[in-house]
Amino acid sequence: MEFSFQPIGVIHSCFKEKFGIPRQPGLLTEARASIELLPPYDREEALRGLEDFSHIWLVFVFHQTQREQWRPTVRPPRLGGNKRLGVFATRSTHRPNPIGLSVVELEGIDKQDGKLILRLKGIDLVDGTPVLDIKPYLPYSDHIANAKGGFAPEPPASAQSVEFTPEADAACRRKEQAGVPNLRNLIVQLLSYDPRPAYYDENSARREFGMKLYDFDLKWTVDGRRVMVVALEEVGEGGVER
Amino acid sequence: MEFSFQPIGVIHSCFKEKFGIPRQPGLLTEARASIELLPPYDREEALRGLEDFSHIWLVFVFHQTQREQWRPTVRPPRLGGNKRLGVFATRSTHRPNPIGLSVVELEGIDKQDGKLILRLKGIDLVDGTPVLDIKPYLPYSDHIANAKGGFAPEPPASAQSVEFTPEADAACRRKEQAGVPNLRNLIVQLLSYDPRPAYYDENSARREFGMKLYDFDLKWTVDGRRVMVVALEEVGEGGVER
Repeated sequence: MEFSFQPIGVIHSCFKEKFGIPRQPGLLTEARASIELLPPYDREEALRGLEDFSHIWLVFVFHQTQREQWRPTVRPPRLGGNKRLGVFATRSTHRPNPIGLSVVELEGIDKQDGKLILRLKGIDLVDGTPVLDIKPYLPYSDHIANAKGGFAPEPPASAQSVEFTPEADAACRRKEQAGVPNLRNLIVQLLSYDPRPAYYDENSARREFGMKLYDFDLKWTVDGRRVMVVALEEVGEGGVER
Repeated sequence: MEFSFQPIGVIHSCFKEKFGIPRQPGLLTEARASIELLPPYDREEALRGLEDFSHIWLVFVFHQTQREQWRPTVRPPRLGGNKRLGVFATRSTHRPNPIGLSVVELEGIDKQDGKLILRLKGIDLVDGTPVLDIKPYLPYSDHIANAKGGFAPEPPASAQSVEFTPEADAACRRKEQAGVPNLRNLIVQLLSYDPRPAYYDENSARREFGMKLYDFDLKWTVDGRRVMVVALEEVGEGGVER
């Protein structure tokens, strides 16, 4: 038995690659994206009433991991990467069916160049993600007051301090003036969660890391609990260690 | 572009048909079901750690409506069935991709006759529903404290009183003794939400209704706000008006 689905939309996101993306939505309130509805689903009336909801569910495809073999257990980064849990006990992207589920804030609905666009905040989705469904978040049903949260009862800690070199600070201001809203806040939120893979933690003092954000490479170093943003480079401008 | 998925499990539910099923999970705490994991996904280690979560998400297929044509608007029963909203602004089963999303209470995980079974409470799923994914409910991410709930900010009202004829009461006790737990409570919860289609409301005083529950037909009459359970009949025993 097999079920086939067509994407009803596609994500345009500030996150251009999987590395560095927060592990759940809502952690980075400044992380922005949009959904572009695809034909034949790009009908204004299909969204009627959605503007009265503050949050929506996205059912989407983990398209970057969909061709990988599933395994019954995974190692959640939350547990330091060295404890195995059942795949169905985690929100891992490596699943028998690579279907993702995220609740995100709906900022607004626009029509741009004849395209229907939903503007989103607090996302954890990579650019190009195919969206299978949009559903309203129903507080009376989706908000479980006393749910027990297993291995992840609390949000991950964000204990790191984030600073900028003068050059990175100037580059950030230039990009904000050029139209990337709240970029500095986004970078601080993002790096405060320490997006390095868990197994780097021990021996990575002062190593340099990088990820693509919007149209540039973000580069930073880590020294203990201190993060220093060292560059916002045009893609291809410098070597980024991955 | 198309994405194909195989069911990882199948639902065995007290609800044998779509009519009468609550519109969201959690409303009927006594509504029970189980998921049977299907090979090759029926691996105990794939569930390791899930027992530490009180609630789980089910991503499933609305298999009874999947062949129907989608429409951009639907008429939510919640609004009396006479106002059209965009399909993406509702949780309607008639969607471009017939994918459902329910959070349910996880009662336990069992092995029965070599099958891996998850016992569930508070479900809104019909028997035979194919399950595409199981994910833990993460309170820190899924529980949005201040979400605005659009046309459905509160649970539906359950203002009806539910009584039993002496014959129905006796039949209910017999079934409870024969091993259907909390059946009376389930019937009272179920009928207090008035599962009649919205467009029946006005002119249906004293009409008889029926639905399949477990292995029997539940029959009741409605007189204003008063519901009377009149029979729990073996399937095929009497005519049920649908």
